[in-house]
This record gives sequence, structure tokens and C-alpha cells, in this order.
Amino acid sequence: GHSRVDHDRLDRNGAAEVIFGQGKTVDQLRDIMNSLSQHGQDILVSRLTEEKAEPLVKEFPGSVYHETARILTLQHTKPELTKTFICIACAGTSDVPVAEEARITAEFYGNSVKPIYDAGVAGLHRILAETEVLRQARVVIAVAGMEGALPSVVAGLVKAPVIAVPTSVGYGASFGGATALLAMLNSCASGLSVVNIDNGFGAGYLASMINKIA
Amino acid sequence: GHSRVDHDRLDRNGAAEVIFGQGKTVDQLRDIMNSLSQHGQDILVSRLTEEKAEPLVKEFPGSVYHETARILTLQHTKPELTKTFICIACAGTSDVPVAEEARITAEFYGNSVKPIYDAGVAGLHRILAETEVLRQARVVIAVAGMEGALPSVVAGLVKAPVIAVPTSVGYGASFGGATALLAMLNSCASGLSVVNIDNGFGAGYLASMINKIA
Amino acid sequence: GHSRVDHDRLDRNGAAEVIFGQGKTVDQLRDIMNSLSQHGQDILVSRLTEEKAEPLVKEFPGSVYHETARILTLQHTKPELTKTFICIACAGTSDVPVAEEARITAEFYGNSVKPIYDAGVAGLHRILAETEVLRQARVVIAVAGMEGALPSVVAGLVKAPVIAVPTSVGYGASFGGATALLAMLNSCASGLSVVNIDNGFGAGYLASMINKIA
Amino acid sequence: GHSRVDHDRLDRNGAAEVIFGQGKTVDQLRDIMNSLSQHGQDILVSRLTEEKAEPLVKEFPGSVYHETARILTLQHTKPELTKTFICIACAGTSDVPVAEEARITAEFYGNSVKPIYDAGVAGLHRILAETEVLRQARVVIAVAGMEGALPSVVAGLVKAPVIAVPTSVGYGASFGGATALLAMLNSCASGLSVVNIDNGFGAGYLASMINKIA
Amino acid sequence: GHSRVDHDRLDRNGAAEVIFGQGKTVDQLRDIMNSLSQHGQDILVSRLTEEKAEPLVKEFPGSVYHETARILTLQHTKPELTKTFICIACAGTSDVPVAEEARITAEFYGNSVKPIYDAGVAGLHRILAETEVLRQARVVIAVAGMEGALPSVVAGLVKAPVIAVPTSVGYGASFGGATALLAMLNSCASGLSVVNIDNGFGAGYLASMINKIA
Amino acid sequence: GHSRVDHDRLDRNGAAEVIFGQGKTVDQLRDIMNSLSQHGQDILVSRLTEEKAEPLVKEFPGSVYHETARILTLQHTKPELTKTFICIACAGTSDVPVAEEARITAEFYGNSVKPIYDAGVAGLHRILAETEVLRQARVVIAVAGMEGALPSVVAGLVKAPVIAVPTSVGYGASFGGATALLAMLNSCASGLSVVNIDNGFGAGYLASMINKIA
Amino acid sequence: GHSRVDHDRLDRNGAAEVIFGQGKTVDQLRDIMNSLSQHGQDILVSRLTEEKAEPLVKEFPGSVYHETARILTLQHTKPELTKTFICIACAGTSDVPVAEEARITAEFYGNSVKPIYDAGVAGLHRILAETEVLRQARVVIAVAGMEGALPSVVAGLVKAPVIAVPTSVGYGASFGGATALLAMLNSCASGLSVVNIDNGFGAGYLASMINKIA
Amino acid sequence: GHSRVDHDRLDRNGAAEVIFGQGKTVDQLRDIMNSLSQHGQDILVSRLTEEKAEPLVKEFPGSVYHETARILTLQHTKPELTKTFICIACAGTSDVPVAEEARITAEFYGNSVKPIYDAGVAGLHRILAETEVLRQARVVIAVAGMEGALPSVVAGLVKAPVIAVPTSVGYGASFGGATALLAMLNSCASGLSVVNIDNGFGAGYLASMINKIA
Ligand SMILES: Nc1ncnc2c1ncn2[C@@H]1O[C@H](COP(=O)(O)O)[C@@H](O)[C@H]1O
Ligand SMILES: Nc1ncnc2c1ncn2[C@@H]1O[C@H](COP(=O)(O)O)[C@@H](O)[C@H]1O
Ligand SMILES: Nc1ncnc2c1ncn2[C@@H]1O[C@H](COP(=O)(O)O)[C@@H](O)[C@H]1O
Ligand SMILES: Nc1ncnc2c1ncn2[C@@H]1O[C@H](COP(=O)(O)O)[C@@H](O)[C@H]1O
Ligand SMILES: [Mg+2]
Ligand SMILES: [Mg+2]
Ligand SMILES: [Mg+2]
Ligand SMILES: [Mg+2]
Ligand SMILES: [Mg+2]
Ligand SMILES: [Mg+2]
Ligand SMILES: [Mg+2]
Ligand SMILES: [Mg+2]
Repeated sequence: GHSRVDHDRLDRNGAAEVIFGQGKTVDQLRDIMNSLSQHGQDILVSRLTEEKAEPLVKEFPGSVYHETARILTLQHTKPELTKTFICIACAGTSDVPVAEEARITAEFYGNSVKPIYDAGVAGLHRILAETEVLRQARVVIAVAGMEGALPSVVAGLVKAPVIAVPTSVGYGASFGGATALLAMLNSCASGLSVVNIDNGFGAGYLASMINKIA
Repeated sequence: GHSRVDHDRLDRNGAAEVIFGQGKTVDQLRDIMNSLSQHGQDILVSRLTEEKAEPLVKEFPGSVYHETARILTLQHTKPELTKTFICIACAGTSDVPVAEEARITAEFYGNSVKPIYDAGVAGLHRILAETEVLRQARVVIAVAGMEGALPSVVAGLVKAPVIAVPTSVGYGASFGGATALLAMLNSCASGLSVVNIDNGFGAGYLASMINKIA
Repeated sequence: GHSRVDHDRLDRNGAAEVIFGQGKTVDQLRDIMNSLSQHGQDILVSRLTEEKAEPLVKEFPGSVYHETARILTLQHTKPELTKTFICIACAGTSDVPVAEEARITAEFYGNSVKPIYDAGVAGLHRILAETEVLRQARVVIAVAGMEGALPSVVAGLVKAPVIAVPTSVGYGASFGGATALLAMLNSCASGLSVVNIDNGFGAGYLASMINKIA
Repeated sequence: GHSRVDHDRLDRNGAAEVIFGQGKTVDQLRDIMNSLSQHGQDILVSRLTEEKAEPLVKEFPGSVYHETARILTLQHTKPELTKTFICIACAGTSDVPVAEEARITAEFYGNSVKPIYDAGVAGLHRILAETEVLRQARVVIAVAGMEGALPSVVAGLVKAPVIAVPTSVGYGASFGGATALLAMLNSCASGLSVVNIDNGFGAGYLASMINKIA
Repeated sequence: GHSRVDHDRLDRNGAAEVIFGQGKTVDQLRDIMNSLSQHGQDILVSRLTEEKAEPLVKEFPGSVYHETARILTLQHTKPELTKTFICIACAGTSDVPVAEEARITAEFYGNSVKPIYDAGVAGLHRILAETEVLRQARVVIAVAGMEGALPSVVAGLVKAPVIAVPTSVGYGASFGGATALLAMLNSCASGLSVVNIDNGFGAGYLASMINKIA
Repeated sequence: GHSRVDHDRLDRNGAAEVIFGQGKTVDQLRDIMNSLSQHGQDILVSRLTEEKAEPLVKEFPGSVYHETARILTLQHTKPELTKTFICIACAGTSDVPVAEEARITAEFYGNSVKPIYDAGVAGLHRILAETEVLRQARVVIAVAGMEGALPSVVAGLVKAPVIAVPTSVGYGASFGGATALLAMLNSCASGLSVVNIDNGFGAGYLASMINKIA
Repeated sequence: GHSRVDHDRLDRNGAAEVIFGQGKTVDQLRDIMNSLSQHGQDILVSRLTEEKAEPLVKEFPGSVYHETARILTLQHTKPELTKTFICIACAGTSDVPVAEEARITAEFYGNSVKPIYDAGVAGLHRILAETEVLRQARVVIAVAGMEGALPSVVAGLVKAPVIAVPTSVGYGASFGGATALLAMLNSCASGLSVVNIDNGFGAGYLASMINKIA
Repeated sequence: GHSRVDHDRLDRNGAAEVIFGQGKTVDQLRDIMNSLSQHGQDILVSRLTEEKAEPLVKEFPGSVYHETARILTLQHTKPELTKTFICIACAGTSDVPVAEEARITAEFYGNSVKPIYDAGVAGLHRILAETEVLRQARVVIAVAGMEGALPSVVAGLVKAPVIAVPTSVGYGASFGGATALLAMLNSCASGLSVVNIDNGFGAGYLASMINKIA
């Protein structure tokens, strides 16, 4: 077969395998979802277009498609939310889909999330106005395209780990998010690490890991 | 003056400012160290060559130069070590200096550290033999140059967050560490984030933040 | 004319010329196929879209279109299969088309093939479970996108040559397969060489050469 | 001869030709300086190493070598300073040489300059504390290496044009200043333009042009 | 909500926030436009496709869509034009859209503009014939794709600041405007600075700032 | 207006201005063609899609659209052909459009051309079989994509100048022709120079210049 | 300790661990050599400078330093040489060190080798004159810098697998061997695979694997 | 041996083999020079450092070392100079060594040369003042670093072929000459082709070929 579902992952990594929807056909997705279902595991499909989501939502009762985040989830029982929370900041309106991918992922794993959207560094008062929320978070996700400066500024304000997510928002010399990625990797602020361009899922997953440390 | 020491950082970020030694003269370093000393703060100078370290170690009693890590530290009281620990794995002997930069940094902030060195994926049994230690760590730092595959393999084995550190070890198409960096950013394992090439300090600092979450 | 078919290749290289389908019109393809047919040679057209395959399959009786592999073949007599075999491993479900391009090519030249699909390094037990098959192969093809770590891990497990095939599977900093390509070129495992991104054909052809060494 | 001095430039561009010192021999520099002297023009040699400056300072009475800025100047009469001023901000101590190159250049052309050094975005209070000075400047030069975020933050605070100067300060994925350059070009703040990596001279010259607009 | 409109910008930066149209839905654009309208601010939406402009022009009486420039503007009172003017030169017919983006932006802010279009360096007499106009301008915008040489030539002819705008016009090794961008950053002429590829808006905004210096 | 047609070019450069069709609208093309027609000049429009060519061919009697070359020409009198000839070699069937762009251009300027198509270095006998023709040419154009090796081999066989044209033919690490371009620039054969990726026009024009040297 | 010697590799991979000399100190090398010696294994140290080789050759009786190849070997019994042979071709005199690294490696593992040096494609008769030797080889290694065309030409002449080794020989746009590497990956000849820039060792090791297939 | 001197080249290519001095030892150079001498051929060694030239000049009577051009020549009889001439223009004083490499090469093959040095586009009157000389040349070499604009401007002024030579002169985003190279490849002027960065030899050789066309 085309897929070898990693059912052991829940045990090994503390979280069930997650399906990377991009480039998979609806048939392949259905197969993998069925395989996970039969093992009683919750399901999250990331990077799923609306077209592919539609038939799957119909076939899998209880499944929900989160449009902006492009994620499909199917959960047997809603997890209880954490007391500590993850703060997700993003720089511009166009970065919201990536921020939402992080939010839906984090909530799927039972985390409380507080979003601060469209608060880029060109109007610094917007992020500074939220300093208190930022400082109360157990971990912060900072999402930005173009020059990717938001995570540096945020990491300078807080004691918590900051997960930086570059986005492909921009044009010309933004080179599909490479500029934001490089900027974040070179941050002169400490306590910051970086995930792949547009990888809201990865940021949400990691933030959950950190937020749930007992 | 040339420097505006960020004395407020201890309060704001939970850790005193740290000095980036590269490209600074001994005179500049002495000035900044004096300024921090007068505020009663502990001192860590990273990326410090042996030549520049020598006079500073003489002038600042109690300061120690960690040769492999290229770090100078000066601590008024040794911090008590954490009960949970950080595991630092590296792929080859040539990656050890970066791993040591992470270790000295983490220990400076009072963390227990367990190193697993020279355990690259070409001889998989070496890292597999340490699965237990890896699984007990609260956070893992995985250091590798060349193809940068170690963090992916490690992240697949554990439940803890993995901080990936690419190194500039390699030649030809390793492009000074860019290949390892890119590989780590594209990891298909979850729970992994990346810092700059050779940034052992950044990894150690972030690991400390996570390890000390109460 | 637009093409100068290399009929002498069977003699010179031990295998008939193969048609690179991408960027050729159906008319050009028909011409070249006819020219090869008239010389009594078997035909393989790679990188052929379904649209272009359809009319050609109709016109050339006995020809077969392999959808996932995007290859059309026409063989006068089925070659007898080799006793030794080629093992083809791939990392994820999305890498299957490239793996299949390698498989169809290798079988076209009369090789036995054993596939191990969706066995990426993030769930290491999947590839480790197949260690015996891998070790019995005369040559291994390892296909992976994203961080491209699978070939390194495989080469560390076997005595046979490993042909690494990077794929364009991924997003963001995968840069269309460049990251996987670079990772494979920098493998710290020995006995591994690399072909172009998505070049399943080249890998299958080379594996056949090695597998058939007498 | 090797050089064709552009004596007409004072007339055409409002400022005499300036000598790019890098890669020229002391003999070539002496020739060009003599040629400019004979036309009664003030002299500025940029990117001049201390070794090459030494003999020239001796031979040309009245000439001054600015060590940090690596500039040699020779002025017949000190120009009167402008009432409006240029503000030069830089992110870290290691960026000071580039900032100084800008300052000496601007002062050479008769501009008042106010420096704000070591005020990077990781400790935002440092640059915010200088908001008043920044707002009074007629034009601002913002110098930064690594992630290059300072110009974006500054441009968000002021009404004046901001000239962004990326520096080669950093390591790893800073790629010799390319990251800072790209970040600045992608700034989401308006009123900002960019010069070449480490081009303090160009920034100082352009700032002078703008500051002296009547 | 998805957006946090920066109403304070008029005060802080001397110009109201401007809407970056690319990647925003008509619904998001309508919301932001309403929010700005309610604060009595003039509106400029850049990078707006004709499809998205159509409904907005209908809903917002008095708004105008500038097709070539891909800008929508809505102004309560036409600003009085400046006496000094901005000259906008471009190299080829294909660069006109970017030049027009700069022109509409500059005029929106009340600047007089004189365009010199299709005057690239391969037929030097075309730009030389306009030397007088260029020399009378208070600031020049020079727009070019391909080899990006026009700004260097223009900056050699005038005393005013030159804002260089690389465009994505070209093919092959123009790499989407990267070549023109790099050429402009390396100009051996002084008084020149650079904005992002195709960023006519940024150039027009900055030119306005400089032209309106009192 | 949008265009400033360079009518003086025939005089200055020995050849009338040529129209770069890509990115221009049919309206703009018609205007420029009319302007050239009124000056009695022959017309060549390069990089013209079939869609845009159709109406223009109808409106301009005597004009011809060369489909493979994507060129439209309109010539008042057919030029007499040169006695010496230009040889145009290309590596594969997919490179033919670029080779044809060079051929139509060269013939437009009155040159005799001999094509050698689909003669790449993987089947060396194909190009070696044409050594005599190659050696008789006054100038050779060598067109290749993928690894771009043909020009090196050809330049090693002849005494005439070789103009190398990289094409965007290939996939994966061919990076849109960048690989072929770089290979050609690094040729260890002498007497070879390079034009932009896919720039058949430029090669044909330059070859004409050299072939017509009296 | 700094190293975890992979003693099991002989068993697992059919060849003992090999020491990558670059970046290791003499002390580290001595430790690893001793560890291998104690396990009775043969030793090969690659990328070893003359300075570091000198003391080691003295301390380890029977060890030999191969200057051009920059390899140190220590073998308990000379292996019997294979009947089939590996052919190693290189393009220019400057590529010889990499070719020699491959040769010494292959001979270390008991292979017969026939070298064809300085036979680049700019003088095609040189490699064509050796066609017979090339065709008799069981596997060919083709080494080239600059445009990297030799492997394509060789692979077109033979039935055996070709291992292409790009070298860093060249200047300017050879970008440290990246051009040759890319050219080889894009070869239109079949049966060719590529190793890292300057990786003579990897090529020799893989060729040995293939040559010794029984 | 290490070298296979291409003695047949004079016949095949109309010019004897030339020695690429970079990376060769004095011993290797002596061997090759002797081999060429014994065949009665003239000798040109390019990219030869002063250190390596010294012993060779002593050993080979009649040989001359051209310091700026870094070329050694040995000619049995001075060739008669051509009536037509090659014009070599360069942009700045720092580009002179590359221009001189072209000049010495061209003169070695018997060409008359007229140099126009330090005439870059930032002071356009300098190159315009030489329009007559440029127009009389049979072929022009245009050498420039930084933004590489000179060849475009020159090609717009003349009817002769223009050979563009990018140099590594510059800093920051000049990326070792890559920017100038890219700019030249994208020239909107016709009749221009490009050689490798700093390849004065290649330009001089090709110009000679064209200048000597009978
Ligand atoms: N959006 C995403 N970005 C990166 N990795 C992902 C994403 N979604 C899922 N994954 C990872 O990709 C793996 C599944 O890949 P696949 O086997 O191709 O479905 C999962 O184990 C996830 O950890
Ligand atoms: N998918 C492929 N990738 C790389 N090379 C290929 C592929 N398919 C065919 N080829 C090679 O391309 C050559 C044919 O190219 P062409 O003459 O353009 O049809 C054949 O000789 C094959 O060796
Ligand atoms: N075409 C453009 N290019 C670059 N920046 C722009 C452009 N148009 C608007 N902006 C800036 O982008 C900001 C708005 O971004 P957003 O909040 O995403 O609408 C504005 O403050 C402008 O300064
Ligand atoms: N400076 C140079 N740049 C590029 N190619 C050169 C140069 N000098 C010599 N060559 C070419 O390099 C070949 C000699 O290379 P080699 O055999 O390594 O000495 C000659 O045939 C020349 O055509
Ligand atoms: Mg906004
Ligand atoms: Mg090891
Ligand atoms: Mg999977
Ligand atoms: Mg500081
Ligand atoms: Mg035009
Ligand atoms: Mg073909
Ligand atoms: Mg040679
Ligand atoms: Mg000059």
C-alpha cells in the first residue's frame, strides 16, 4: 500500500500521527483516516484544500473543517483546556491563516490560546499595548511575513519561549518567505527558535508540548 | 559610548544580558563586563577567542574560560542544579564545540545536562542505544552538521521538545551549514524547532527556559 | 527534423534510447516512437502526462501507461526477471510517484523490485522493521523529500550501494526539493550517490545497471 | 593612466568625487588625491585600511584618518554645520564602524549629526527612550546587522525619511549581511529605503543631500 | 478581528495608514476601508486586482480605480499640488505599471510629478534629452527591470536624491527582479537608495516625504 | 505615452529597434509597430504568444508569425543572404524553440543559417558527425539546457567564435536554466561567450553582427 | 568522550569506519586510530593535512601518507587486487588531487584502478582516445571542476555505471564547485550519479562496492 | 603524468593551448611549458602569481611577466599587429587588472588594442567623450564590477560586438561579481555576450578571434 500509518506514535511521541494533506488524493486521505479511526485515534489533517475537505467532512461524521486554517479535525471527546495559555501574535492580516493553523492545532491538543492579530512592528504601539497578555503566556507563537521582525521584538519583551513562524506573505525580495525565515534565525533576542515557512501546524504542536510540561 | 548595556533584561527576560564576544575588542568587552559587574550581574561572554579571553580572565578574578565552548563565565554564586535535565546529542566529533557551547550555557543558568556525543545517523545503533536517556530528558538539544538528520531521528523517538542546532561542519555542498539548517527546518518529525547555524548558545538558553518551566 | 534518434545507444550503452516526454508534443512523441519501433527497439517514455498518453496508447498496440509513474512502455517480449533484486524505499506517501517511476523503469529493464513505501525517519521503527529485506537487496534506491534523511539512515544499515533520490515534496524552505538534494549530497554515510530531484527514472536505470552486473 | 578623475562632479552632482579606497594601491591613491588637490577640491577616501592611511596622512598635511570609520578626509575649510540634523541609530556595538562611516561622511559635507548607538530591538526600551531625538531629526539613518529589524521599528516612529544600512555583522545564516539587507527591503514600514551592505558612506552622502534640501 | 487598523499613523508618521490589497479578501478590504472612513481618513489601496476593485468602487462613492497602477484611492478633498516636483523615469514600456504606482501614490499625497517613460540606457540619447527636467526635480524615482542600470546613470546626472525601484520585468537570469535589485544596490553613483522589487508605492511615498520637506 | 521608440538605432547600431513582445498588450504592440512602419523600418517582435500574434498578423499585411520561434516579422524587401553562414546546434528536441528564435532572427538580418538539432553530448557521435559543417561556419550558436555541455564540446572543435545559449529545459536542479547558464560561463574551452537563458534572439543578433563583419 | 567509534561498521556495512580528518585535532585522531587498532581494523584517514599527518605517521608504524590524495592509510595485510578494474578519469591537472583521493581509497579496499587524467572535453580527442579502456572498466569515476561536462560525455560512451565527482576547481561563477555539481546532476546521459563536491573518498568507496559485487 | 598537453589545439582551434596558472605548482608549470616549447609553440600562462612567475621567468629566456595582468608570455617572434583594433573599456581603477589581462592576451595574438580605462557610468561624460574611438573598433571589450552597467551603455553606442566581462570588484551585495555578471546577462542592449567573472583572458581571446575574421 501507499501508506504505513504510524499508530505507535501516540505512545512514542505523546500525540497521534497527524496527516499532511497536501499532495494526497481524497482516496489516500480516506484510507489513512479510516486506519487511524480503527485504532481509536483522534484525527487532524493539515494543509487540506476546501475541495478535498468537502467529501471527507460528509463521510466522517463529527469531523469539522476549519476554513481559514485549512485543517480538518475529528475528535472523539473534546479535551479539557489547559489553565496556562499559549499566546499567538501575528504581524498582518495576511498572516492570519498561518496563525489560525497554529491555533486550531494547539486547541486540538487541549491548549488555551489567546490571539493578538495584525500587530506588526511598523505600528509598535499595537504589540506594546498587549505586553501584559504576552508576559502571562507560558509560550508565545509569533507569526510574520515580509521582514519577519515581530518575533525579535516579542522575545525582547517576555520570559517565555518564543516560537517564530515565517510566512510567505510579501512580494519581490521576500522570496516566498525566505527573508522572514532568515531574519528570524538571526534574531538578536534570546529564547527564540524557528519552524519552516508557513508551518503553523509545527508551531502549534511544539507550543502544546511546552505548555503541557508538568 | 559604543554600548548601551541592557541592565533591565534580568527583570524583563528572566536572565541577565549576555555578551556576544565576536567582533568586539578587549577594551569594549572589559567596559561591558565592568558595567554588568557594577550591577551585580553574572557574566557570560560567548564566541570569545582564546587570545581575547586571556587578558580578561586575568583581570576578572573568578572568571573561567571554557576552551572548547569558547565561552567565558563569571558567576558570583554557583546556581543550584535542576532535577530535570537537558539532553544534548551531537552527530560527530567535529560538532562537539557547538554542543559544548550549549552545555556551558545551560549549566550557567543552573540546568543539569546529559551529553550524548558522536552519535550520528550513519551508525544508528549509537543513538538508539541512548533511547532511555533521551526519553527521560525534559528537553533535547540535537546538534549536527553535514546532512543534519540527527534532530529528525531524535524527535521521532521522544515526547519532549527538540531544539535543532545546525553546524557549519562539512564541505562542498554543505555551504557553511546552510544544508543542515534547511534539512532541520524541513523535518517531517513534529516538536522540533531550529536556531541559527552554530548557535549553541541560543539552544542552551532556550532549553534552560523550557527546562525551568515551573 | 526536430529529432536525431540515438539508435546506436543499445549497442553503446547496453540500453535503447529512452524518450523524455516532458515538453514534447504528441506529434513529436509519435515520430520518435515510430522511429524506435522501426528499429525494433522497446520504448519507454518518461514524464508523460495522462493527456498526452491517451492518444499514444491508442495508436501503439501493446503499449501500457503507468499512471502513478507517469511512464508509457511498449515491450515486444517481457524480459525475464533477475534473481537478485532492487529494493526501493520511500519516506512518505507523497513520494510514491517518484518511487514508482524508479520501479517501472527497473522492471522495464528486467529487474526484480521490492518496494518499502512510507517508511520515513520520523517513525524509525517502520524502516528498521524492514532491515532484512534491505540487507538482501543488491542495490537500494531511497526516495525522500522534505529533509531527505532516509538515504543516510538506509546507507548506514546495508552493504549495498544506495542511490538517493530527492523529491520536490514539501513546502516553504524545501525549495522544490533542493533541501533534500543537498542533504543527500552531504550524507555522512558511505556508499551513497545522488541523482536529480524527482529523477526516479535515472535511479531505476542506474540500479538496473548495477543489479545486472555479472 | 589607470584613473580618469571626475572633476566635473562637484558641478554636476553638487559634491566632489570621492575616492573608494578598497583595492587601490597607495600609489594610485596618491595620484588621485594629487589630481583632486590640484583642482582645489576637498578629499574623502573611504574603506581605507590603517596601513595605507599612514603614509598618506604624512604626505598630505591637514589630512585626518578616522580610525573606526576607516575614512581619510582633507578639508580646506571646515564647513558650517546645518541647523537641522541627521540622526544615526545603530543596533549593536559591532555595527558602530558602519555608523561611524556614515557620521564622518555626513559631517564632511557640513551636517549636524546625533548618534544613538547600541539600541537594537531586543531591548526595545533603548530606542523608545530616544523617540524625541528621532522625531526631531530631518532624516534618520538606521544601521543593523543580523535580523536587520531596527529600521522598520524606527520608520514606524518618525515622519522623516529613514535610510536603512544593513551590516555584515552576524554569523551563520546572516550570510554576510544578506539577511539584514533582505529584511530591510521587505520592511512593512513606509518611508524607508536601503543601501548596500556596510555602505555607511552611501547612507551619509544621501542623508546629507536630503538634510540640505532648501 | 483580523485587522487592527493603525489610525494613529497620520499623527505619528504624517500620513494615514495605507492598505496593502494583495492577499486580502474583498470583505477584509471593505472592513478596513470602513474603519478608516469612520476616522475621516483618506484611503489608498495598493496592489488591488481589477476583480476586487470593481465591487469596492461601487460601494464607496468618490473612490477611483487606477488601472495601470492597480491602486484604488478615495480622497475627501483633492490636495493642493507642490511647487517643486518629483521626476519619475522608467526604462521600458513594461516598467510603466510600477512607475504609475509611484506616480498615483505621490499625487495622492499632493505632489507634482513629471514622468519620463521608456528611456532605458540602451538608447542613451532618450534619457540625456531629458537632463534638464531631471536636474530641476527635487527628487527622482528611477524604475528599471532587467539589468537595472537606469538609476546609476540618472544619479550621475543630478544633484537630487534618486530612489531606485527594481522591477520584475525580464526573463531567465533576471530572477524575478533580483538582478535589477542587486545592480541598484551596487551602484557606483552616490545619492541613490533602493526599495523592494516592484515597490512603486514605497518609492512614491518616500519621494513625497522628501519633496515636502519644508 | 508609454513608449519612446528608438528610431535612431538603425543608424547608431546598424539595426533597427526590435520589439520585446513579452508583457506588452496588443494595443501597445500595434502603436510601436505603427511608429516603426511610419519610419520605413523593418519589424521584428520577439517572445510573442500566438494569441497576441493573431490580430497583429491580420492588421499588418506582409507580416509573418513564426510559431516555434514565437517571432513576428515584417520585412519590406527580403535581404540578400550572406555567403558565409552561421551554424546553430542544439542539444535536444526541447531546445528547438530557442534555436529557432536564433535562426529566424539571423535570417531576418540576411544571414545564411545551417541548423544541427538534437545533437547533445550524451550521444557524442551525433555532433562529431557534423564536424565539417561546424568548422566551415563563420560563427556557431550552441543551444542547450540541463547540464549545458554542448557549447564546451563544440568550442573545442572549431576555430570560430561560439555563442552559448542556455535554455530553461530540464527539471529539478536545472533551476530554470541557471545550471546550464553557469556551466557555459565556466567552460574550459576558449572562444565562447554566453547570453541570457532562452535568449535565442540575442544570440542570433550577435551572430549576425559577427557573420557580417567585412 | 568526544568520539563513539563505530566498530560494528565492518560487519554492518562490509567496511570498517573511516576517519574524516578535517577539523579534528591530532589528539582526537590518535585516540580514534588507537581505538580502531585495538579492534584490529585497517585505518584510512581522509582530508588530512601534511602537518597533522607527520606526527601520526611517526607514531603508527606501517602507516603511509599519500600526499596528493591527503590520505593516511594503515593496513595490516595488503589486500589482493580485483581482476575487474575501476577507471578514474579527470578533466584537468588541477582536479588530480580529488581523483587521487578516489584512487587511494579504491586501492585501500583492494580494487585495481586505471587512471586517465587531464582529459577534459575542450580537447575531446584526449578522452576519445581512451574509449577502449573506459569500456572495459566495471565502473567509472569521472572527476571535473568548472563546467563539469566530462561525466556526461563519459556516460554516453560506456555501459558501466559512472560516478560523477564535481571539484571546487575554477573561479568566479564556478561558486566553489556548485556549478560543476549542478551540471552533473542535470546530465542528460543515463547511468550516472553524483557525490559531494571534492568527495573523492565517497566516489572511491562506492566504486569499490560496485566493482566487488559478486 | 598529471598533464596531457593539447598540442593539436593550434591546428584545431587556430591558437595554441594556453596554460591556466592558478592552482598549478611551479613544477607542473615548468613541465607543461617545456612540453609546449619542444613543439615550438608560443606560451601564455594566465592567473600566475608573482611568486610563481619569478623562477619561471629566470629559467625561460625571452619570457616576460606582465605584473598587473598576472600573465607570463614567451613568444618566438612578435606577431605583426592587426590594422583593425579592439577597444577595451573599463569602469573603474580597480577593474584595470582584468582589463589588462584581456589586453595582454589580445596583443599576444597580434591584435592592436586601444584602452579606455576608468570610464564608468556614474560620470557618463567620460565614456561619451570616447564615442568615436568606440565606434571605430571592430570589437569592444567592456569590463565592470559592482552594478556592471558599462557594457549596456557601450553596446547602445556602437555597431560592433561587445564582450562583457564582470569583475569581482565591489563589496556586500556584489557577491564576488555575481551581481555584475547577472546585470550583463540581462542587458537590454543587443550585440552583447558575457564571459565568466574576472575572465579577461577569455574576453581577449574571443575578441582576437572576431577581430581577425578575414
Ligand atoms: N502542515 C504540516 N507541516 C509539517 N509537517 C506536518 C504538517 N502536517 C503534518 N505534518 C507531519 O507530517 C507527518 C505526516 O506525513 P505523511 O505521512 O506524508 O502524512 C505527520 O507525522 C506530521 O508530524
Ligand atoms: N525522466 C527523465 N529524467 C532524466 N533523463 C531522462 C528522463 N527520461 C529520459 N531521459 C534521458 O533523456 C534522453 C532523451 O532526451 P530527448 O532526446 O530530449 O528525448 C534519454 O536518452 C534518456 O537517457
Ligand atoms: N504596495 C505596497 N508595498 C509595500 N508596502 C505597502 C504597500 N501598500 C501598502 N503598504 C504598507 O503596508 C501596510 C498595510 O499592510 P496591511 O495592514 O497588511 O494592510 C501599510 O501601512 C503600508 O505602509
Ligand atoms: N584565465 C583563464 N580563464 C579561463 N580559462 C583559461 C584561463 N587561462 C587558460 N584557460 C583555458 O584553460 C585551458 C588550460 O587549462 P589547464 O589544462 O588546466 O592548464 C586552456 O586551454 C585555456 O583555454
Ligand atoms: Mg495591518
Ligand atoms: Mg564519528
Ligand atoms: Mg506517512
Ligand atoms: Mg548591545
Ligand atoms: Mg522601449
Ligand atoms: Mg534526443
Ligand atoms: Mg589541461
Ligand atoms: Mg574612478
